[in-house]
Amino acid sequence: MGVAVDDLEAAIELYTAVFGAELTHRASSEKDGLAAAFLRAGDAEVELLTPLREDTPVGKFLAKRGPGLHHIAVAVGDIDQAIAEARAKGLEMIDQEPRIGLHGTRIAFVHPKSVGGVLTELVEA
Amino acid sequence: MGVAVDDLEAAIELYTAVFGAELTHRASSEKDGLAAAFLRAGDAEVELLTPLREDTPVGKFLAKRGPGLHHIAVAVGDIDQAIAEARAKGLEMIDQEPRIGLHGTRIAFVHPKSVGGVLTELVEA
Repeated sequence: MGVAVDDLEAAIELYTAVFGAELTHRASSEKDGLAAAFLRAGDAEVELLTPLREDTPVGKFLAKRGPGLHHIAVAVGDIDQAIAEARAKGLEMIDQEPRIGLHGTRIAFVHPKSVGGVLTELVEA
Repeated sequence: MGVAVDDLEAAIELYTAVFGAELTHRASSEKDGLAAAFLRAGDAEVELLTPLREDTPVGKFLAKRGPGLHHIAVAVGDIDQAIAEARAKGLEMIDQEPRIGLHGTRIAFVHPKSVGGVLTELVEA
């Protein structure tokens, strides 16, 4: 689950102090204009995302909708195969080819219009 | 994770056929004006929600924002204690007392403004 936040440190404090989540690592990308904190809460992983610039996907999301749920991520074994299967099933991919996400793993986003309005990230496990 | 959908059957088909989720059960409540399907996908549970009437929280959500991520649910051991702890930490509860959710378990919603814009449901496990 990816959550767009205005204040990354305040959000980390909320998730760790109130929900008992554990901060596992942080990452940022100047290229993507994005900083993130990864937390584990029970079986779930939460990715808190904040934009480094306004002209980024998460910056635009925050400007338009305010903070909140941004996307969900689905672990897949082989991302090339997952993309091929998604396409074969008629889903529109945002990323036609895998790219490297903030985790350092290969990812690809499915267009929310193909997933009932839910921005969905395939992540190679 | 709760997802608001326009067409429950189409959404079930999408999640089972494309994401390999398994439909575990269905529930509906005339009182709440809500029908739901519960699916398991790996470690995650997905609750697909569709309104039976427009003048319901999910009906208003769909009218305002369209289909998409609606809320997340957090399993807690004792919901009375979880509500007391949430209040003690300064979170605003929508439900001051537990109520019975569609699962038949005790639930309470935390106001999204206390959780960085994320509507959060506490569910007694």
